[in-house]
Amino acid sequence: MANAPLPRIGITLGDPAGIGPEVAAKALLDKDVRGRGRCVVFGWPLVKWVELGGRVPSFVNHEHALDAWDGHIEGVELIDVGAGLAGLAVGAPSKVGGDASIQCVLAAIAAARRGWIDAIATAPISKEAVRLAGHPWPGHTELLAEKFGAAEVAMMFAGGPFRVVLVTIHVSLVEAIRAITADRIVRTCRLASAAVRRWFGVEVPRLGVCGLNPHAGEGGQFGHEERETIEPAIRAAQEEGLCAFGPLPPDTAFLQAARGRFDVVIAMYHDQGLIPVKTVAFDESVNVTLGLPIVRTSVDHGTAYDIAGRGLANPGSMKAAIRMAADMVRQDRQAQSPKR
Amino acid sequence: MANAPLPRIGITLGDPAGIGPEVAAKALLDKDVRGRGRCVVFGWPLVKWVELGGRVPSFVNHEHALDAWDGHIEGVELIDVGAGLAGLAVGAPSKVGGDASIQCVLAAIAAARRGWIDAIATAPISKEAVRLAGHPWPGHTELLAEKFGAAEVAMMFAGGPFRVVLVTIHVSLVEAIRAITADRIVRTCRLASAAVRRWFGVEVPRLGVCGLNPHAGEGGQFGHEERETIEPAIRAAQEEGLCAFGPLPPDTAFLQAARGRFDVVIAMYHDQGLIPVKTVAFDESVNVTLGLPIVRTSVDHGTAYDIAGRGLANPGSMKAAIRMAADMVRQDRQAQSPKR
Repeated sequence: MANAPLPRIGITLGDPAGIGPEVAAKALLDKDVRGRGRCVVFGWPLVKWVELGGRVPSFVNHEHALDAWDGHIEGVELIDVGAGLAGLAVGAPSKVGGDASIQCVLAAIAAARRGWIDAIATAPISKEAVRLAGHPWPGHTELLAEKFGAAEVAMMFAGGPFRVVLVTIHVSLVEAIRAITADRIVRTCRLASAAVRRWFGVEVPRLGVCGLNPHAGEGGQFGHEERETIEPAIRAAQEEGLCAFGPLPPDTAFLQAARGRFDVVIAMYHDQGLIPVKTVAFDESVNVTLGLPIVRTSVDHGTAYDIAGRGLANPGSMKAAIRMAADMVRQDRQAQSPKR
Repeated sequence: MANAPLPRIGITLGDPAGIGPEVAAKALLDKDVRGRGRCVVFGWPLVKWVELGGRVPSFVNHEHALDAWDGHIEGVELIDVGAGLAGLAVGAPSKVGGDASIQCVLAAIAAARRGWIDAIATAPISKEAVRLAGHPWPGHTELLAEKFGAAEVAMMFAGGPFRVVLVTIHVSLVEAIRAITADRIVRTCRLASAAVRRWFGVEVPRLGVCGLNPHAGEGGQFGHEERETIEPAIRAAQEEGLCAFGPLPPDTAFLQAARGRFDVVIAMYHDQGLIPVKTVAFDESVNVTLGLPIVRTSVDHGTAYDIAGRGLANPGSMKAAIRMAADMVRQDRQAQSPKR
């Protein structure tokens, strides 16, 4: 493996009216981050963004001339996706910004499908801007799933001591409860187990499956979903050979995971999984899409229009997304290389 | 205030078949803990418990003779509630254990009503054991509310950087969603604000009120409870002069609180509030009952029958419960003392 080529990481700049270009620039100016792989930015020269009103973080001027990222951060390649940024107002959702952000992702997908890159790390886009631009996808995940023909995807959040995969995502809590079925839990367990094995190198991933209700229902006193849905799902997953445990009382499941008892937590709904990740590992946590043929990581935050263009954005999650993408590709290659 | 008497803290031993006596003994052997107030234990001599099969933590033997707690931990008073422990098996719920645990609490309540103690810190009891003993109260809170004639109580968890008050508690998630009304949220805000002012000395407590749904509903896309229930409740609370903010996206509300933006978080359901507290501050977090005329704190864990009698229990939460009770009483007295 000593001579293996570096993982090739595509980085999309996201909505040009948001903090995406800024966090990508800040992340890639970190030598450790860009040294993890061969980084290819899908977007536009940073100067273009700056001309529109995005202030360049002050340290860019120290390390590089302002026009450095006319394509020339050392070791970073820039693919100009040719998005028309004319008329863009930094700091608000717009047709122009929405279209530009989708062009970045489409270009990265095309590159990945041709085998030019191994992974995509995405900066944030805005649902609202994408809608204004007339594109049909509500978010990255749907766009990636469609273009890669993925039958099923799941969302993992990784940060600090946690890897968490969600059974339900962006729906109301009432709808989430309705949408939790044994079949869906088993499918999520399968995706989570396969992903943790392939991309994170855990031979037999231990899945900690959360209950839905307080104290995991306390033997049926606080709800029946554990007995009727989650326990049967765990048994079914075990029968398939998955190492699944639970239903765990949700309020202590994450502490147990942090202490090393599980390799991944299966959370029933968005906030059950996201509250611990964001509380403990905000600005370092990464969103990973499971079920795609390539590695896809993403920042765990949005476009943050309110601070866009002011040089204030924290690149922690973008750095973590690039690093994790590179580590995942490296892990996968290592497993595939013939044992010596 | 220099000559003010020490806060008088009643400590109940909880279920003798659980880890209560052990964590109370361990906590009170800590000089810093017992120095916070005049500690009065409502229970039985520790030797009685040891004779029944509870192993005394090894360090008890170092600091004190085994029979030390025949009433004689330095500075700690023991009130023997006269519970019959004959036939008790440590490590399982029983009629004997359930009755003994209730006797401790009734004795402490009687002492508090007579003004002999200022606060009660409780070790865990078992719902199951209490039921076996034929008592009608499902838990401490209901018993305390009844005996003190409290019209309304609420549960606060305090630990690490968090104070969290729950709008709904021990019901299924589906029932919790149904039980969340604007009126209930406002009443919880009132109790939380008054408690944080009185017992924690915050002149104008800032309440961070969580949404129910992911991203606090994302403008109605992921649920309508924010618009229909939580926003009106926050406005009503503000009109009463409460400093309430929200609805906050639940996944970042606790991080904001930890960073000092709020003095207390109002959580809509059990796990929304308990996941961050237990993940970040397990073994140091304390359950505080709001709405009683006295201070009542409690450990944040159960009887832990599986490790009872083995000397393995962590007294962190019991120590924190005693310390917090003493600090709350001291804060209240300070506020009531005439300004000079």
